[in-house]
Amino acid sequence: MTNNSSIDGERLWNSLMSMAEIGATEKGGSCRLALSDADRAGRELFMKWSQEAGYRLTTDAIGNLFVRREGADNAMAPVVMGSHLDTQPTGGRFDGVLGVLAGLEVLRSLDDGRITTRRPIEVAVWMNEEGARFSPPMMGSGVWSGTFSREEIVDVIAQDGARLGDELVRLGWDGDTAADHRADPKAAYFELHIEQGPVLEAANCPIGIVTGAQGQRWYELTLTGQEAHAGPTPMRLRRDALVGAARVVELVHAFGESGDDYTCATVGVLDVFPHSRNVIPGRVFLTVDLRHPQDSLLDTLDNRLRNETARIAEATGLKLDLREFWHFPATAFDPTLIGRIRDAVDKCGYGNQDIVSGAGHDAVYVSRVCPTAMIFVPCEGGISHNESESIQPIDAKRGTEVLFDAVLATATSH
Amino acid sequence: MTNNSSIDGERLWNSLMSMAEIGATEKGGSCRLALSDADRAGRELFMKWSQEAGYRLTTDAIGNLFVRREGADNAMAPVVMGSHLDTQPTGGRFDGVLGVLAGLEVLRSLDDGRITTRRPIEVAVWMNEEGARFSPPMMGSGVWSGTFSREEIVDVIAQDGARLGDELVRLGWDGDTAADHRADPKAAYFELHIEQGPVLEAANCPIGIVTGAQGQRWYELTLTGQEAHAGPTPMRLRRDALVGAARVVELVHAFGESGDDYTCATVGVLDVFPHSRNVIPGRVFLTVDLRHPQDSLLDTLDNRLRNETARIAEATGLKLDLREFWHFPATAFDPTLIGRIRDAVDKCGYGNQDIVSGAGHDAVYVSRVCPTAMIFVPCEGGISHNESESIQPIDAKRGTEVLFDAVLATATSH
Repeated sequence: MTNNSSIDGERLWNSLMSMAEIGATEKGGSCRLALSDADRAGRELFMKWSQEAGYRLTTDAIGNLFVRREGADNAMAPVVMGSHLDTQPTGGRFDGVLGVLAGLEVLRSLDDGRITTRRPIEVAVWMNEEGARFSPPMMGSGVWSGTFSREEIVDVIAQDGARLGDELVRLGWDGDTAADHRADPKAAYFELHIEQGPVLEAANCPIGIVTGAQGQRWYELTLTGQEAHAGPTPMRLRRDALVGAARVVELVHAFGESGDDYTCATVGVLDVFPHSRNVIPGRVFLTVDLRHPQDSLLDTLDNRLRNETARIAEATGLKLDLREFWHFPATAFDPTLIGRIRDAVDKCGYGNQDIVSGAGHDAVYVSRVCPTAMIFVPCEGGISHNESESIQPIDAKRGTEVLFDAVLATATSH
Repeated sequence: MTNNSSIDGERLWNSLMSMAEIGATEKGGSCRLALSDADRAGRELFMKWSQEAGYRLTTDAIGNLFVRREGADNAMAPVVMGSHLDTQPTGGRFDGVLGVLAGLEVLRSLDDGRITTRRPIEVAVWMNEEGARFSPPMMGSGVWSGTFSREEIVDVIAQDGARLGDELVRLGWDGDTAADHRADPKAAYFELHIEQGPVLEAANCPIGIVTGAQGQRWYELTLTGQEAHAGPTPMRLRRDALVGAARVVELVHAFGESGDDYTCATVGVLDVFPHSRNVIPGRVFLTVDLRHPQDSLLDTLDNRLRNETARIAEATGLKLDLREFWHFPATAFDPTLIGRIRDAVDKCGYGNQDIVSGAGHDAVYVSRVCPTAMIFVPCEGGISHNESESIQPIDAKRGTEVLFDAVLATATSH
């Protein structure tokens, strides 16, 4: 066993900054859309570092890359760390990248300490986590975990007209090994990630122990009234779809405000038709995003949403169409791995708190077929998916130290 | 003097239906965008009818057409009827067209009755009332009344790239006479128009005596909060611009609901940024349209809007930018001409009510330099600016009878 000092914070930070130069944006962010030339350049830099260190590289049939440091017993399933290197169009320098480069730093530190683990250890770079160029997100981990089939994913077309399968071939990312957890089982998966929210920073807490991911229910609502001229139509004769929609926004917001600290309720899209200054809106489309770590509470909110929006529609003389667009069950991470992270944090002596991930991560899909846990570190102002995304070098180092200890403990276990 | 039976309802209706064939749309409406080939074809049909009847035609320098039936004393200023022949892209068959063709029917009826009026009588076809292709609306009457200068209007560019002045030349509508009320004063202006609102129909009332037009105050508001991920951002740390915007929508609606029957308050446009299902809106842009026939009441609402939106912004932690986009003072029509319309309605024995125009019309600009009044007839469901716009033939005839009597009374006056 080694101690925390084995993590070289400067080497880690330098690798983050070198990676950020690939697809660097004017405002200090990164643009490496999935399967673009910039994404390839980013991955090639990472592969170069990995090859120089002597690790074995494997790309599977959906473009997931696994970098492997062998253990004492290579017949055993590996312990895996990882995340992604693709970004949003105006993305930051840390979302995903930290999890991959922290994984590399853990392997390098094991080398530095001449440590032989019982199990092999791998760093995974999952293909297309962001879903910005090719939708949906988390494609690589989704196929590997059996959430999506490879066949449906290779046929996805980007807005720029590219077919995903063709891009895999173009980049040489259509590997020979099956993109299937059953063909190559993993013993455990750890993902270090920036929080992408403001909780840890607000609590002045360097480490978040992620106990699971919030369940999500997404809806699409259309309210239909009567489009009419804003001048000659008296208020008493109006059926204004935007007035009903405003009440739905307030309702959804109240779900969040009256819930516990984990309840999140958001209207992110609202479109007004016909969208003219002097025409009473005849129709409004809006989306609702409800999240909570307990599916039972989401069921309750689902019920309230249906009943109370129907009441709003009735009171405003509008027709309501409500449909569930997506349902993503709550995820609980693996208690044993969470325990290892807890032990590691205690050993390091860092302030910490349990936290639930509000966002989707590769870890959520991976957790469906493999014991999984996550570590969060704070990001400035909670801002992410933004060129101004920023973290402190000390937080990157602390998160990687915790990752190191938790991985090492797991890689020596039976 | 003649009696009402001089109006030939069938001839009037046939002319309306013939005009509707030009630029006819699949759903039964008309598309004659201002200064388009269809607009030219519509005007040429009207000119052909006018020439066949022996009237004198003049086009002024901004493309307004005046069709003149001489009187006994042609040195006197004419009494003018009129409206417009251009339409919205998916416009109806009556908006504007009724006022022009009713004017022609009045001239024809005077011919039928071999009536010589003291003053000459004209029918005006104002250039580009709708403002759909070239903005702003009511350009022809705006230039004639001195509201706009000819110089600024000829340089307006359409979305299709056409320059208005070039289109005037192309169509031969750049006439020799000045587009200026001072060069060619008119004694009075009457405009018959469909109501474009539901009030007369709801009251089962065939004639609206329009006493004026509502003042209008248009605003643009931007609420700015903090864009953030809808998952990992707890409610207590959010600054959701859409929640503030929803409260502004409710506030504006309450202005209307708590006011008298003339108070109109509408949010017609609301845009959410960044417009993503799982991102808390960081910015919302919205428009407010307030209308009332008394400027003093609009001033009060202006004050309340500024104070109460500021309070909403403060309570929701948002930054508010509010600016007045357009201010259109309330218009009172000419009491003498209103009296003539009232006399005509009484003579005809039609049910009637006073009404205030909520929409803009050429009559509003004309009234700034010439005694003006308007007559409204009901339209089905109050629907206008729509291919399904519809009126009853009997209502067209009744409105034209009232117009006839009011014009005749004015054309015989000193």
